[in-house]
Amino acid sequence: MKQRLWNYISGLRNTSPLVHSITNYVVMNNTANALLAAGASPIMAHAHPEMKDMVSIAGALVINIGTLDEYWVESMRLAIRQAETLKKPWILDPVGAGATHYRDTVLKELISIYHPSVIRANASEIMALAQVSTPTKGVDSVNKTEEAPEAARYLNKTTGAVICISGATDSIIHEGKCVSLKNGDPIMARITGMGCTATALTGAFCAANPANLFEATVAAMALMGVAGEKAAALAKGPGSLQMHFLDVLATITEQEFNELLILEEENAGI
Amino acid sequence: MKQRLWNYISGLRNTSPLVHSITNYVVMNNTANALLAAGASPIMAHAHPEMKDMVSIAGALVINIGTLDEYWVESMRLAIRQAETLKKPWILDPVGAGATHYRDTVLKELISIYHPSVIRANASEIMALAQVSTPTKGVDSVNKTEEAPEAARYLNKTTGAVICISGATDSIIHEGKCVSLKNGDPIMARITGMGCTATALTGAFCAANPANLFEATVAAMALMGVAGEKAAALAKGPGSLQMHFLDVLATITEQEFNELLILEEENAGI
Amino acid sequence: MKQRLWNYISGLRNTSPLVHSITNYVVMNNTANALLAAGASPIMAHAHPEMKDMVSIAGALVINIGTLDEYWVESMRLAIRQAETLKKPWILDPVGAGATHYRDTVLKELISIYHPSVIRANASEIMALAQVSTPTKGVDSVNKTEEAPEAARYLNKTTGAVICISGATDSIIHEGKCVSLKNGDPIMARITGMGCTATALTGAFCAANPANLFEATVAAMALMGVAGEKAAALAKGPGSLQMHFLDVLATITEQEFNELLILEEENAGI
Repeated sequence: MKQRLWNYISGLRNTSPLVHSITNYVVMNNTANALLAAGASPIMAHAHPEMKDMVSIAGALVINIGTLDEYWVESMRLAIRQAETLKKPWILDPVGAGATHYRDTVLKELISIYHPSVIRANASEIMALAQVSTPTKGVDSVNKTEEAPEAARYLNKTTGAVICISGATDSIIHEGKCVSLKNGDPIMARITGMGCTATALTGAFCAANPANLFEATVAAMALMGVAGEKAAALAKGPGSLQMHFLDVLATITEQEFNELLILEEENAGI
Repeated sequence: MKQRLWNYISGLRNTSPLVHSITNYVVMNNTANALLAAGASPIMAHAHPEMKDMVSIAGALVINIGTLDEYWVESMRLAIRQAETLKKPWILDPVGAGATHYRDTVLKELISIYHPSVIRANASEIMALAQVSTPTKGVDSVNKTEEAPEAARYLNKTTGAVICISGATDSIIHEGKCVSLKNGDPIMARITGMGCTATALTGAFCAANPANLFEATVAAMALMGVAGEKAAALAKGPGSLQMHFLDVLATITEQEFNELLILEEENAGI
Repeated sequence: MKQRLWNYISGLRNTSPLVHSITNYVVMNNTANALLAAGASPIMAHAHPEMKDMVSIAGALVINIGTLDEYWVESMRLAIRQAETLKKPWILDPVGAGATHYRDTVLKELISIYHPSVIRANASEIMALAQVSTPTKGVDSVNKTEEAPEAARYLNKTTGAVICISGATDSIIHEGKCVSLKNGDPIMARITGMGCTATALTGAFCAANPANLFEATVAAMALMGVAGEKAAALAKGPGSLQMHFLDVLATITEQEFNELLILEEENAGI
């Protein structure tokens, strides 16, 4: 797979797919810029009367619940239904899963009634989300990160979605396959919305490659990690990291990408 | 006209007019920063009970429908009515015109019931907007950009608004006059909200020069293009472009501006 | 006090308190990034059904009315009630106090029915806010800045909140004590949301130091001013200032901080 990933990245630059995001206020600007830098074309809209039309012209839909409220949750439902009707991939970012009862209730609906193509989240959120589906457990704490692959496999099995756990190591899990990526830099956690950007890029790669969402997700996370690592080497702090990150997303070459990429592939079985 | 444009830019820095924007979530931060960098003073508010008061203290109103919904459209109506009552200029940015039926319905209302002072949009949006008023045509595609001046002249005639088509060439059209600007850089399209920033700056120059909205619009677009071109020469990608763009907006000198400016003036007739 | 301030800054980096902000759309990204750069952990949420849960897990609540509307004002009420029930500090940023009747009505409610722990605002807003409580005066104009300490002492007396007036000089006033800080740079006013960032950081320091909100506020403003001053020395305009500011917030050392800090302490009496 390692040899194929650059093709996904150059393919994105050439096809410039349209990605419709219903996302949170905090990161809208960042994630739109990251999509543009990587070669995709962002649209962000949430008005109920235009959800069908917007999803119809987009190649993928990104649903991020970071600053959800009742109106926006209904926007999400309308957009997801249209995406499922038109068989377009939709990506779920369950921001803050486990933080409030309301979030968990909304997430439970989104993953039980609908069928996300990919779920991208950090370990705590993946674990909280798995527990949404297994209500006999309480909300888990942050320190059980090592349990996330198990929760991810459970989520993959119950929802059918490709599951991506992001962190120091990113793991992408689907039907017994697992790819782990070990790029990036701890300073990436000092900018808001890096996770949301990973989800947005996943949406872009899925829009460009609807036939292989597993590899599309790996490609998105590989680009995130490698670009973040290269940007961190240039940065003097989180402010300059953000600037360099966008520059690198737009300008990284095949050689730079392949030299930095650390990818481990396994068929873990379930 | 070329000789007068710097006076508009230095005048803006000296008078610091207040610009009230009802704009989209994605670009609020960028456009507020661009207004501040150019010397204007931004306010952004949308609550129905304060629309009249806000418009009353502002020098111009910017209406950008990028992330519209039912509440915000009503905010726009309330603000526009007050701007028209007080004879203050208001600028329309029809983001995504033609993308959804809802947008087109809202835009049709805004340009038929109300009277925008200036409409600033890219070629596709100008053409879609013209077709909103000529319902016998369908929604046009992106590849007919060369038809935009005709659509712009039609919009100018039917709405009375100064029409600004932005792109590789910016054309400002009003009552048989046409000024074309050939500054800028293709990388500007790799940052979200550059068009929205152009509209916000147009609002600032109109606030400072309500007696000559045509030249005020030309000045805004000239500053955008020249500053973008200078910033692009300093940038290593879209992230650093954004930083340099704000720096240049705040610091560009008369000599730098006049050396870079490429302006063509014609009395095209209708 | 001067010798203790660095302990607050290093303490914040070590404890990473969670700060819940109900703030305006324009600055959400900036203020989240400033919180992360300084070592705190931001959450932003406004849905009514999750306000209680969010406040329960946070160390402090920041209320910023910049882009208020009816739904968000109710979010504020729900969050404030929970903060007061749980005796957690909440910080008020009365953006645009005096600009519209609606803002003044909302602010009057927030400071008369509820009990902010700290109010951080510029001189005009502090004066307008004091007049909200003294309805026999009209709305004051910007040019009476020299009257702000009197208004601040009045607000401190009537609300019990620590009052912070920010500007070229920052003054923090509480029960006869007054600390003045003379750091910063005029260019800081050319980026949107620097005041909102000061309020967000005040929330972070209050979350980490609920037993001494006066000194926590002084520490927040000292870090703002010193980091802004150091960043301004590195910047070529407002765009690069923003980048350097986040870098400096994350990397400033005790020695750099103490060398730049200009603090005057007085027991002013009332």
